[in-house]
Amino acid sequence: MRFATLADASGSTTAAVLDGDRWRALPATDLSSLLARMPLAQAAGQAGPALEDHHPVLPLPSPTKVICCGLNYADHILETGRELPRFPTLFAKFADTLSGPSDDVVLPPGLQVDWEAELAVVVGAPLRGADIDTARGAIAGYTVANDVSVRDWQYRTLQWFQGKAWDRTTPVGPVVVTPDEVDPAAGLDITCRINGEEVQRDSTATLVFDAATTLAYISTFTTLRPGDVVLTGTPGGVGVARDPQRFLEDGDVVETEVAGIGLLRTTIRFAADSPTPA
Amino acid sequence: MRFATLADASGSTTAAVLDGDRWRALPATDLSSLLARMPLAQAAGQAGPALEDHHPVLPLPSPTKVICCGLNYADHILETGRELPRFPTLFAKFADTLSGPSDDVVLPPGLQVDWEAELAVVVGAPLRGADIDTARGAIAGYTVANDVSVRDWQYRTLQWFQGKAWDRTTPVGPVVVTPDEVDPAAGLDITCRINGEEVQRDSTATLVFDAATTLAYISTFTTLRPGDVVLTGTPGGVGVARDPQRFLEDGDVVETEVAGIGLLRTTIRFAADSPTPA
Repeated sequence: MRFATLADASGSTTAAVLDGDRWRALPATDLSSLLARMPLAQAAGQAGPALEDHHPVLPLPSPTKVICCGLNYADHILETGRELPRFPTLFAKFADTLSGPSDDVVLPPGLQVDWEAELAVVVGAPLRGADIDTARGAIAGYTVANDVSVRDWQYRTLQWFQGKAWDRTTPVGPVVVTPDEVDPAAGLDITCRINGEEVQRDSTATLVFDAATTLAYISTFTTLRPGDVVLTGTPGGVGVARDPQRFLEDGDVVETEVAGIGLLRTTIRFAADSPTPA
Repeated sequence: MRFATLADASGSTTAAVLDGDRWRALPATDLSSLLARMPLAQAAGQAGPALEDHHPVLPLPSPTKVICCGLNYADHILETGRELPRFPTLFAKFADTLSGPSDDVVLPPGLQVDWEAELAVVVGAPLRGADIDTARGAIAGYTVANDVSVRDWQYRTLQWFQGKAWDRTTPVGPVVVTPDEVDPAAGLDITCRINGEEVQRDSTATLVFDAATTLAYISTFTTLRPGDVVLTGTPGGVGVARDPQRFLEDGDVVETEVAGIGLLRTTIRFAADSPTPA
């Protein structure tokens, strides 16, 4: 099944489920709110009226946790001469970091901004000290993300966080697809394009730590809750690793796609009046 | 002024303000809830009945962000032969990571657990793209924290997060003291003791990045909100840096103190049945 948070022309949002070729409203303002109350399968039974003239927005606007895995595509790791990691590299973002599938990413000029196409996992049930099978059963679904990174800030110190947590710079969406409909372990093509030029391509079958393994691992030290989002890493082809290095420019359109899930289309804007004061 | 979240014998909590030698109830269940609605100074004017038989618990149970600074005590950095950092090293915790000023910290056996006495800053007003003066004016107050760290997990990969975000392992409290009453820049003694033996001692005057500087820096990339908590780093004397290394043992009582603020008393327990399943 496919779920989303959809907005009408006024920006008013509703959770929704795809029924054939029609999106139907679910009784919640968005998928975060929905997942906090019930599993997606149960929610689907409460589908209401078909929606017209709605567009997808950030599906999970209020996760309690957003955790990211680095260094997780085996082909890329091996081709750069490194060994496969024994443990997942993890770092955190905030709910504020996330943005919608067609939102612009706006940053101050002068930063080195890079792309990172990622498969993201949505948690559907509480997990703590879970084994891999329990974790697998707790996956609500999969969605697409781009861990757009501010590389100069990321590498100012040894801890990446300050380059990874800029508000409204991690597009997520456009839909959440349940595990019965899409199986990353079987291999989904994950790609990234800049202004139509392909810059990343790999298969999710090459993930070192798959979704269930990663959720179980995280649950060892912290509780994961319905609506939490875990990004599973990016393949080779990122700008900072190129020679010469390449970064995003004002007006670049970044497309992030995972086959079987959908597409993010993100315009990068460098604006002198950003960030927006609180 | 001094504020706290206090609980009665049944565990029911209220925000509170110290009036002379009596704690008086404020109209909120805790300081997170209070700060979300009004500045502390305004809250103090709404003090209600004096409280009897209440004890301090985690003052901020629901921060939207908990951000920590590493490598921030100048004397310690220099004595280990390093240069003072140009930028603060930052990493994130979650609200789930925090625990109360007299709560046990419970972890599975076999982990390498270390102590890190820290001054913590509580945000009192929204900050984004703030300069240092604006950030200073947005400090609600100061409290004490111990960034208890699971060192073996912290160093499994280059990103520390997975050793820093174990649920209910970062004691915070016991009170929040407003900046008019305590000035870390002037130098507050910060100490840590294990079973009465002093293991850390320094002065907050030696912080490389003071509270206002750190908040302003963070606000460059993300919005800080009332009730958010920023830990400002730990002095020398941590266990992992000793030769031989030393880690906490079952039953150890860790006392963390900042002069002018208060004391945390934390018993470390290694329990085979932890973590608590979700």
